[in-house]
Amino acid sequence: MNPSPATLKDVAAAAGVSVSTASRALAGNPVITEQTSERVRQCAEELNYRPNAQARALRSSRTHVIGVTIPSLVNPFFATMAQVIQQEATARGLSTIISSTAEDPGQLNASLDVLATQRVDGILAVPYNGSEASFERLRKARIPVVLLDRELPATGLSTVASDPRPGMDAAVAHLLANGHRHIGYLSGPMTTSTGVSRLAAFQAACERHGVEKREIYRGGYERADGHAGTLTLLDRGVEAIIAGDTMMSVGALEACHARKVIIGRDLAFIGYDDNVTLRLQASPVSVIDQDVATLGRTGLRLLVDLMSGASPPTTVTTPTTLIIRPSSDFIRPADEVRT
Amino acid sequence: MNPSPATLKDVAAAAGVSVSTASRALAGNPVITEQTSERVRQCAEELNYRPNAQARALRSSRTHVIGVTIPSLVNPFFATMAQVIQQEATARGLSTIISSTAEDPGQLNASLDVLATQRVDGILAVPYNGSEASFERLRKARIPVVLLDRELPATGLSTVASDPRPGMDAAVAHLLANGHRHIGYLSGPMTTSTGVSRLAAFQAACERHGVEKREIYRGGYERADGHAGTLTLLDRGVEAIIAGDTMMSVGALEACHARKVIIGRDLAFIGYDDNVTLRLQASPVSVIDQDVATLGRTGLRLLVDLMSGASPPTTVTTPTTLIIRPSSDFIRPADEVRT
Repeated sequence: MNPSPATLKDVAAAAGVSVSTASRALAGNPVITEQTSERVRQCAEELNYRPNAQARALRSSRTHVIGVTIPSLVNPFFATMAQVIQQEATARGLSTIISSTAEDPGQLNASLDVLATQRVDGILAVPYNGSEASFERLRKARIPVVLLDRELPATGLSTVASDPRPGMDAAVAHLLANGHRHIGYLSGPMTTSTGVSRLAAFQAACERHGVEKREIYRGGYERADGHAGTLTLLDRGVEAIIAGDTMMSVGALEACHARKVIIGRDLAFIGYDDNVTLRLQASPVSVIDQDVATLGRTGLRLLVDLMSGASPPTTVTTPTTLIIRPSSDFIRPADEVRT
Repeated sequence: MNPSPATLKDVAAAAGVSVSTASRALAGNPVITEQTSERVRQCAEELNYRPNAQARALRSSRTHVIGVTIPSLVNPFFATMAQVIQQEATARGLSTIISSTAEDPGQLNASLDVLATQRVDGILAVPYNGSEASFERLRKARIPVVLLDRELPATGLSTVASDPRPGMDAAVAHLLANGHRHIGYLSGPMTTSTGVSRLAAFQAACERHGVEKREIYRGGYERADGHAGTLTLLDRGVEAIIAGDTMMSVGALEACHARKVIIGRDLAFIGYDDNVTLRLQASPVSVIDQDVATLGRTGLRLLVDLMSGASPPTTVTTPTTLIIRPSSDFIRPADEVRT
């Protein structure tokens, strides 16, 4: 009986390195020192290690670098997403390069073109509506792509996104249960699927639960939009505000601080995306949470599957949840005079 | 008299594009659409535009991409720095790719090697002590490099950093003036020049102003370090805490919230780096501010100068300043019993 052929795991063990390091050494990845690469190659030779042809062909064409393009570096939601992706990528022996579009749809094309010329093995991207042509160019260049957070159905690309409906529905029901009846919503831009779907989820929840009065402010995903929108909604006399993303949530806090509106007493407030600024408030802020770690990890897993040719495009949706904290969890007196 | 030869500016004006777009079009940068490139080339031909030989040689070897490696994506100080750099780079027709070392000195070498293989025109990097060899490899590969935030004198590289002494000195003097005499310091890691120089600045300020009792906690630049360090310093009975960086500042807030220590009443607190989480507190937090926008813009300007061969290595230092807010600006009674 022939002994089993040596595996990459055997080579790694013999060389005293991790499997991913052994893989990168044999692929000639310059991240591995020449000394280590030489030791791995010797061990592979001694063990008569033969990667199968398909795997070898794949490896030889690879740079072991993936590109990630996010809309904003200073939005903690996307910063955390990029960090989770990088951690997972590192564990798999992949390096990560990141670019930001600064929430400018026009910059996305440029970012994707730069990533393509940088010879990355695959791309994780947060798209805008209207950026289909850029992704079509990547498809022609045979660069695997997974869309993150925002959907672009016409592209047929693998997508990982969260469903705003469970969290939004729970948020509206929670506000009503505590007597907050005049509800304002800070809506994100209609150039993103999330802006569109979260607004639809808010409207549907208001219909379902019979909200008496609702106010909608339409803005972008920036602090300034949350700030201006909150002042507008307060002027319209709302008792509660739901914010449509992280940066608008932070802008809403700033507006309330500036106008001496006490959240958790004068105003019920629910933010979007769980982060430290919202948690560390005098009245810690309730949020609709997207589970950013799961989004990032799932996105990377789908991309790795695509890069290895193992799977067709897939769409994964994760549910949102409501985290209730003191900012919204107080009872508004039923007989309070409302404007 | 011969007319002046056509300049790139003339070509750009004729083609109806910006100078940077014209430059990139003539350099064959794929970020520019084929249609625009063709129009620019025609205008250049019609105007008999001839770039001088040196400029042409430079341009032809360029990718118009710069690399930025930062220690952390979720640290708002570095996220803001990267965003400022990207904005400035975009205005100059350069694309930016970013990598993060996740505050792991070992990952810096890998990040720099990846950036080098990605054929970037230049690199802005935040280094660790001990990473001299990686920068030596970049020097041999003739890739222009500017160090940001942290110094590495042995490399002789251009560096943009801030001087912690003015801000730290003002912070200690301010605490003493308000009667906070037992002062704790959350120190960053000794593997960074900033960790070393900020601790030295704290010690020097305590000596100069005659602080009665001081306590030092040595940690890393992570939230968990700030959290654990704050609990330790509180157990030692400090009346005031100065935090050595953004993430330690955030961890300190978390620890105080968890232990129901009221900042601005029970404890005087001064954070490091001005950001929204510290501003939006019940007692807005005093900070030692580094002027991150100036750091980022200056770093990019030095890199562009190096890339054009226009200047020798340069070191620029910007001063820190103290921003006083209610977290530290209260008078501690002189007869208060202290532990």
